[in-house]
Amino acid sequence: MTAPPRALLFDVFGTVVDWRSGIAREAAPFLARHGLRLDPHAFADAWRRRYQPAMEAVRSGARPFTRLDTLHRENLDAVLRDHGLDPAGVPAAELDALNHAWHRLDPWPDAVAGLLRLKARFVIAPLSNGNVALLLDMAKRAGLPWDAILGAEVAQAYKPRPEAYLRTAEILGLAPADCMLVAAHNDDLAAARRCGFGTGFVARPAEYGPGQAKDLAPEQDWDVVARDFGDLADRLGCD
Amino acid sequence: MTAPPRALLFDVFGTVVDWRSGIAREAAPFLARHGLRLDPHAFADAWRRRYQPAMEAVRSGARPFTRLDTLHRENLDAVLRDHGLDPAGVPAAELDALNHAWHRLDPWPDAVAGLLRLKARFVIAPLSNGNVALLLDMAKRAGLPWDAILGAEVAQAYKPRPEAYLRTAEILGLAPADCMLVAAHNDDLAAARRCGFGTGFVARPAEYGPGQAKDLAPEQDWDVVARDFGDLADRLGCD
Repeated sequence: MTAPPRALLFDVFGTVVDWRSGIAREAAPFLARHGLRLDPHAFADAWRRRYQPAMEAVRSGARPFTRLDTLHRENLDAVLRDHGLDPAGVPAAELDALNHAWHRLDPWPDAVAGLLRLKARFVIAPLSNGNVALLLDMAKRAGLPWDAILGAEVAQAYKPRPEAYLRTAEILGLAPADCMLVAAHNDDLAAARRCGFGTGFVARPAEYGPGQAKDLAPEQDWDVVARDFGDLADRLGCD
Repeated sequence: MTAPPRALLFDVFGTVVDWRSGIAREAAPFLARHGLRLDPHAFADAWRRRYQPAMEAVRSGARPFTRLDTLHRENLDAVLRDHGLDPAGVPAAELDALNHAWHRLDPWPDAVAGLLRLKARFVIAPLSNGNVALLLDMAKRAGLPWDAILGAEVAQAYKPRPEAYLRTAEILGLAPADCMLVAAHNDDLAAARRCGFGTGFVARPAEYGPGQAKDLAPEQDWDVVARDFGDLADRLGCD
């Protein structure tokens, strides 16, 4: 990357928000109410493990583009069944409410302040696999000051398919080289780099809880490597 | 409309921003430089007159969805030709710069303050025929505090096609009845109402300049009729 980017596009789950704590927090009363003796964090992990396989059906073309709220809801049914609870016996409104826990995740403590600084200099938007309504509800609740809500649903393609990155740049009217993906995940950055994006790595070593073994450090010479969003703003020359 | 809406979707050109003054302001030095003895406001009107016919080719299916930046640029070439200037003789960068005047329109004086009040209570987003990059640049420059950038490009359909309204509601995860279109144009509101949207009319009697003859008053019993965005916020119970 030679010139500074004009737009910063952010991975969201793990990079901006702490999905594991948020899902565990909302799952805990649900699990207790239904007599499921399962650690809420383990439940969050189990639900999240079904995330990539569900999107893979869309990426492969086996299934038309389906927004993440729908995939999350199907995965919730499956993970409940895995733990011996028949979702057909739970009121749909209760399952939908738990499914919307993904709309109510908390940002990492540095995220909002860092984004506000970055926003003064760059276009900032999510480039997430989350759907628009999910990202919008999350932003309203948490105060994430996005300039626009972009990502898989607008691009009609899930990361790491190149279309997810390239269509986002195109919608912004920018060349890929004018866009930087910011993510806590090396594989997401690798896919963005293959599309010509700049890359910014921010480690989130607590994303997967105390036993996290991956994405603890950059695996390529990413254009920027920052400790958190405040450090990212410093390194990108923001006031 | 019985319940209050959850999302307010805004027409933009004319309703939020004063396109005629903005285009005239940026066209004036261009016209002078190229020796075109034409009132800049008349030039803005002539450019705008080609807006609906260009979108009609997309609405009718004669042409695949094409973003407004592209239609504006084609229309610019045509309107220059109409006035005796061959666009092939003008550097493309200069034409592109003038075309981007649509990204730099000023809001009506009440718009930003009104939107900030409305944003505290509702999801606010454009539902404009403008493309994402145009609306995003405009918002950054003018401080329009949108929660998301929606509209024709995201819905892949131009208003007043019903898909433009219905897909926007669907992306928001809302029923049409939970959405209200705010517009200065009776025909836009009529199309939104046919889709089940709530409707808010704000007259902009200077949109077309001193001779404006249409949209000076509501033509149906719209759910809310307001003087400006501050009055709209009052009527919708905002602090």
